[in-house]
Amino acid sequence: MGVIVQKFGGTSVGSIERIAQVADKVARFRHDGHQVVVVVSAMSGETNRLLGLAHELQEQPLARELDVLLATGEQVTTALLSMALNQRGVAAKSYTGSQVRILTDDAHTKARIRDIDDSRLQADLAAGFVLVVAGFQGVDEQGNITTLGRGGSDTTAVALAAALKADECQIYTDVDGVYTTDPRVVDDARRLDRITFEEMLEMASMGSKVLQIRAVEFAGKYKVPLRVLHSMKEGPGTLITLEDASVMETPTIAGIAFNRDEAKLTILGVPDMPGVAYRILGPIGDANIEVDVILQNVAEDNSTDLTFTVGRADLPRAQAVLEQVASELNAREVRVDSRIAKVSVVGVGMRSHAGVASTMFRALSEMGINIQMITTSEIKISVIIEEKFMELAVRALHSAFELEQAPAANIAN
Amino acid sequence: MGVIVQKFGGTSVGSIERIAQVADKVARFRHDGHQVVVVVSAMSGETNRLLGLAHELQEQPLARELDVLLATGEQVTTALLSMALNQRGVAAKSYTGSQVRILTDDAHTKARIRDIDDSRLQADLAAGFVLVVAGFQGVDEQGNITTLGRGGSDTTAVALAAALKADECQIYTDVDGVYTTDPRVVDDARRLDRITFEEMLEMASMGSKVLQIRAVEFAGKYKVPLRVLHSMKEGPGTLITLEDASVMETPTIAGIAFNRDEAKLTILGVPDMPGVAYRILGPIGDANIEVDVILQNVAEDNSTDLTFTVGRADLPRAQAVLEQVASELNAREVRVDSRIAKVSVVGVGMRSHAGVASTMFRALSEMGINIQMITTSEIKISVIIEEKFMELAVRALHSAFELEQAPAANIAN
Repeated sequence: MGVIVQKFGGTSVGSIERIAQVADKVARFRHDGHQVVVVVSAMSGETNRLLGLAHELQEQPLARELDVLLATGEQVTTALLSMALNQRGVAAKSYTGSQVRILTDDAHTKARIRDIDDSRLQADLAAGFVLVVAGFQGVDEQGNITTLGRGGSDTTAVALAAALKADECQIYTDVDGVYTTDPRVVDDARRLDRITFEEMLEMASMGSKVLQIRAVEFAGKYKVPLRVLHSMKEGPGTLITLEDASVMETPTIAGIAFNRDEAKLTILGVPDMPGVAYRILGPIGDANIEVDVILQNVAEDNSTDLTFTVGRADLPRAQAVLEQVASELNAREVRVDSRIAKVSVVGVGMRSHAGVASTMFRALSEMGINIQMITTSEIKISVIIEEKFMELAVRALHSAFELEQAPAANIAN
Repeated sequence: MGVIVQKFGGTSVGSIERIAQVADKVARFRHDGHQVVVVVSAMSGETNRLLGLAHELQEQPLARELDVLLATGEQVTTALLSMALNQRGVAAKSYTGSQVRILTDDAHTKARIRDIDDSRLQADLAAGFVLVVAGFQGVDEQGNITTLGRGGSDTTAVALAAALKADECQIYTDVDGVYTTDPRVVDDARRLDRITFEEMLEMASMGSKVLQIRAVEFAGKYKVPLRVLHSMKEGPGTLITLEDASVMETPTIAGIAFNRDEAKLTILGVPDMPGVAYRILGPIGDANIEVDVILQNVAEDNSTDLTFTVGRADLPRAQAVLEQVASELNAREVRVDSRIAKVSVVGVGMRSHAGVASTMFRALSEMGINIQMITTSEIKISVIIEEKFMELAVRALHSAFELEQAPAANIAN
């Protein structure tokens, strides 16, 4: 049997009782003959406790020392889980990021992994140990402790799985897999047995909080099969993997993603001239505000309207910049609207199946939902609609693409 | 100016406010031009919190993992103190035991320091950094985290001072120095400006909790001048140093030590024959009970009585062993007494000054205090007396040796 990397987040190891449950789970995999590497986060609440101590001292603590401080959180969990495993007769050893040697750059609090030295790990795995590795942390060339930033434990798990050529990287969470859409919105949302890295990235970027985007990218790049599972319940979870022949047989659409984190700005009556889009969006970019969807109309009076969306939190700043631009360009008016939502259909099948867009637009139109903006990628179509219609739109699309039914090719899973 | 090593214990760094005060103190030394290395313990309560987590899992946690767990306590303090120093414009850097490379043996939870690699420390000191080092911890040859056991932070400080050839190792505590005796017993007990390592060891072994015996031994061995100071008050503290000419000028007696941690056992009416002491004390030693003072009388009827003291906590076990021995040897009786106290006069001056014993015995006799047992070393005379006379004895001796008066040779300090 091969190597399995398992990652447990803060809630899964949030108490001694929870740590004991994780130990039971890991012990079962070990007893089944797997070589197991476990990556753990700090116990829930611990990182915030440590941050609180630092912020009692000062608002902007030194990044190098913040990393030294926060790295203790995961170290505590590794020691406790390793104790719990040994207590169950499972030989286990804890590792800090430095002890593994997870080499990172020196960008404290947001370091990136450069290399993993797997020699000690391989030797201990061969000797029969379960390895319990502190997530979220590494060490730079000079031996300074670094951290990878929020969600870094997922990245640690994927990087270890890549370095150890693991059969699978299992991410244990508080959901039992990736769903066709949010089950709180659509009753018959269905857990997916498989999804591709690309689809997962599109779903994740739309607010599906199951996995960190960075970890999915990393797994895709190194072709590490990633499985999302529930830490407290049994079940196969969802396997995130490369697109393969069997997936090509499967349905056009993997799922429906949505969010209401955006707001829309429109500048009306701008004289239409070359470079006007740049003159409007340049200052927005200079203010470090990310723009998502962009739409430009040319009106009959030779003026133009430009509409774009930004993160809702950035709306006040974006509006201030845009008012300034509007006065410089003699534009007629600036309008803002934060009561919008973005709904997307995602699926690699789109590449080979025609008619996805028309199915989508028909379903929305049948519900009387007006589409304000449209944007597409190779494997995604997104629309901006009025916020109050969001749930209705998600349900209509879920039903139109028959996502409540398991596709034939996947039933074998 | 030279290198100074400063050690702050758990109470001195027990809150963010206290850490800020320590930072102020360290900053003053740095501004005075010293190169400063600070050794810190875990914030008070933290080690017990971590132990509590481990014991929630199991009674006897794996020693390797206990060290990984406990080592986080000091690491947190190093990060916070280093932040506080940088906040004050003092460039500072935290170090774990592994980062310094404080090499120890692999005896987890009670490791001994083998070697300190001072290359990184020297480079950072030369570059102007204050170094904030985690006490109590090290790393073994294989890179495993080790801890030095209780009081280990004092040892870390002394070992670093030795490795860096520091001018002085300052131990900050909750007392402002070493006293001629406990000020709670004798009102006019006087803070000593200096004391020798040997005297300090005798005082420490008698229950003076100011310093860990192991750290004093270590300092003596490597000739590291050690200074005990109060962490919250200003003052010169007490310098613990080698015996030098100026000390030889000073008084016979450095101080009066005492404790009530012992209990006395007597076996009466043992047939006097060769090896009887061994037949009695052998089983006590086999039971891992340490014996302190021993007294043997030969009675007229050719039987013998043997009296000895043990730690009071060991009394029940020692009594059980002794009852067994008594029945084997046909001894007449076993008596125990836990209401005893040990009072000692300590001073290297004893070596060259006669009459210490007679002064001591006269003072006790004038108070009507009966001496039950006597034991002497080169620089100490101890007596066992009835516990209720302990304070009276200490006061009488303090006065008889005129310890309330600063000796002439020390006034210059």
